[in-house]
Amino acid sequence: FPLGRRMPKPRQQGLTMIIDKGLGLAETKDILHVCGQYIDFYKLGFGTAALYAPEVLEEKVQLVKSFAMDVYPGGTFLEVAIIQEKLEEFLYLARHLGFTAIEVSDGTINMSDEVRDRAIATAAGMGFKVLTEVGKKDIHCPIQEIIRQIHRDLQNGAYRVIMEGRESGMNVGIYDEKGQFIRDDFEELMAAIGDPRVLIWEAPLKDQQQELILRFGPNVNLGNIPPREVLAVEALRVGLRADTFKATLCDGTV
Amino acid sequence: FPLGRRMPKPRQQGLTMIIDKGLGLAETKDILHVCGQYIDFYKLGFGTAALYAPEVLEEKVQLVKSFAMDVYPGGTFLEVAIIQEKLEEFLYLARHLGFTAIEVSDGTINMSDEVRDRAIATAAGMGFKVLTEVGKKDIHCPIQEIIRQIHRDLQNGAYRVIMEGRESGMNVGIYDEKGQFIRDDFEELMAAIGDPRVLIWEAPLKDQQQELILRFGPNVNLGNIPPREVLAVEALRVGLRADTFKATLCDGTV
Amino acid sequence: FPLGRRMPKPRQQGLTMIIDKGLGLAETKDILHVCGQYIDFYKLGFGTAALYAPEVLEEKVQLVKSFAMDVYPGGTFLEVAIIQEKLEEFLYLARHLGFTAIEVSDGTINMSDEVRDRAIATAAGMGFKVLTEVGKKDIHCPIQEIIRQIHRDLQNGAYRVIMEGRESGMNVGIYDEKGQFIRDDFEELMAAIGDPRVLIWEAPLKDQQQELILRFGPNVNLGNIPPREVLAVEALRVGLRADTFKATLCDGTV
Repeated sequence: FPLGRRMPKPRQQGLTMIIDKGLGLAETKDILHVCGQYIDFYKLGFGTAALYAPEVLEEKVQLVKSFAMDVYPGGTFLEVAIIQEKLEEFLYLARHLGFTAIEVSDGTINMSDEVRDRAIATAAGMGFKVLTEVGKKDIHCPIQEIIRQIHRDLQNGAYRVIMEGRESGMNVGIYDEKGQFIRDDFEELMAAIGDPRVLIWEAPLKDQQQELILRFGPNVNLGNIPPREVLAVEALRVGLRADTFKATLCDGTV
Repeated sequence: FPLGRRMPKPRQQGLTMIIDKGLGLAETKDILHVCGQYIDFYKLGFGTAALYAPEVLEEKVQLVKSFAMDVYPGGTFLEVAIIQEKLEEFLYLARHLGFTAIEVSDGTINMSDEVRDRAIATAAGMGFKVLTEVGKKDIHCPIQEIIRQIHRDLQNGAYRVIMEGRESGMNVGIYDEKGQFIRDDFEELMAAIGDPRVLIWEAPLKDQQQELILRFGPNVNLGNIPPREVLAVEALRVGLRADTFKATLCDGTV
Repeated sequence: FPLGRRMPKPRQQGLTMIIDKGLGLAETKDILHVCGQYIDFYKLGFGTAALYAPEVLEEKVQLVKSFAMDVYPGGTFLEVAIIQEKLEEFLYLARHLGFTAIEVSDGTINMSDEVRDRAIATAAGMGFKVLTEVGKKDIHCPIQEIIRQIHRDLQNGAYRVIMEGRESGMNVGIYDEKGQFIRDDFEELMAAIGDPRVLIWEAPLKDQQQELILRFGPNVNLGNIPPREVLAVEALRVGLRADTFKATLCDGTV
């Protein structure tokens, strides 16, 4: 592999998180059979988890877990629960259903530090792997505030912090309206954080995946990957796709 | 659910119509198993119905019907039949194959009122649920003409009238080249029609779905939904996705 | 069918090549069951073939072959092998795995005529159907150079020459940044080549497929079709979709 081998599961870096928007059970199994070794976190996007028949949802969660990865409901679901003052009920239900991780986000609502800290602590205390997310879904959040939250979340026990990118990858977090990195924010972020391994970058667009891989190497953590792009992203990681393969070539003439 | 519960099937509003561009039998079953309760109309897009092996098509139609929804071939297929003066043969074949609904459109051809009325009456007389469609596929149709046709079609027995949006959602019907509503046409249409429940809005793009849900509520009729977006659209309807969830928040601070 | 019938398999023109980015075994079978008759070449895109578990890959290749079509790994995989001076190993492995065709490309690396000729000859000598590809993935290649390569490749035994279009269809080969044909290059190419049947046009976007079908007829060779677009493309070929159906109408009034 031009860009080198990847680590086997369970990995602590080079994580891939996918977003499922309502796949059937058979196709989920089928995709995992082919790509399961390349997926670390399986997200049931938005609040879709609430829209399955209960027995179908339980079967899906068990199925995903049987391929040795974490599975969790989208952050919007938790935000709805928090607004409705039902955080505990939400977490008990999630545990009952078999979810192994929880995303704590405030992409839509405004959450005080106290509420956020308590959500992280409660979920962690119940045995969940806690992912937090930084960045707003529809307004530009100052990068200093994002940096502040990342440091707090990690100190409070977050396993990784997700950089918000939505499903679209555009006009959100540190992506501009074309899906390109806002350069100054990106550099300020990396100067403040140092280690890129504490972050999972939601990067639904190929150009975003490519830029992150070329900058941080094949073992950067990527999220919001569409389920049917997992092998394509993996090819990009290891240099088996033109965009990253060419970076390994000095001159490339034979 | 932040935006309220939805009605169970069979529904008379809050209809979701999906466009199938050639799914396999197993994946169709798999999707319907998970999302069938959220789908009311299943369209085999364009003229694809003609491209299946006959026994595969029959099996697919029966499969879809077993999940309690209407199934129909795309309007272009009927337009081809009309141009070839084979409307009756087309309808007999459609009934033989098990289709339960028919779309009468003139997105590509030009159809006189008489031909259109006869197509609606013939299909209805054979027991089909008749959907008509208004709007041209490649030229802007005056909104007054669209309004006139909607009134006529409903008087002639159309179950619902579909607002043309194509698969792309751009530069068609009342969408401009960016897929945004042509404001004046939209307002004139609603002033003339009054009740949005008589329409099914082809709205393949998320921003279109969102705008329609925020304006008309979770039980607006939406069409041309890609099969794998059904749960995402349903999440949008009930406020389990950021874009509509935030509309339920006064301030959203906790 | 408004644009006429298509030829049955095995076809020498009207070829459809699809790009698979990591489908599961069951969905592959399911798609082929419905669309197999419309697919001639099945490509495992980029270097994804290297990312399957070996037994899964062998099963997938056999499955595809059972539907009477050629199957081959993406060109980038061969380019990696050539850069690593492992062309022969690559070809032996490909034959062992059951692949029936090979794509010889230099979309990313720079290949001398000698290396290219030898790759074509070696693959052909081992019994593979050889497809070559012209056009660079990230820089505009002069059309004269593309024409020169097409002539050479065909003389050297290439079965067909693929016009590079990538998965995106934009800013590559003879497509500009919006995915539209670079008019002058297109005309110069056709003037020099004459017979369009020697080419397979990578045309992932509908407007590209439509333009090629309207210019060269339903039996133009199309490539990089997404697996779930096969029936939609076939509908476009035969005039069962608005964009090509309307071309068959003089006036279209009934």
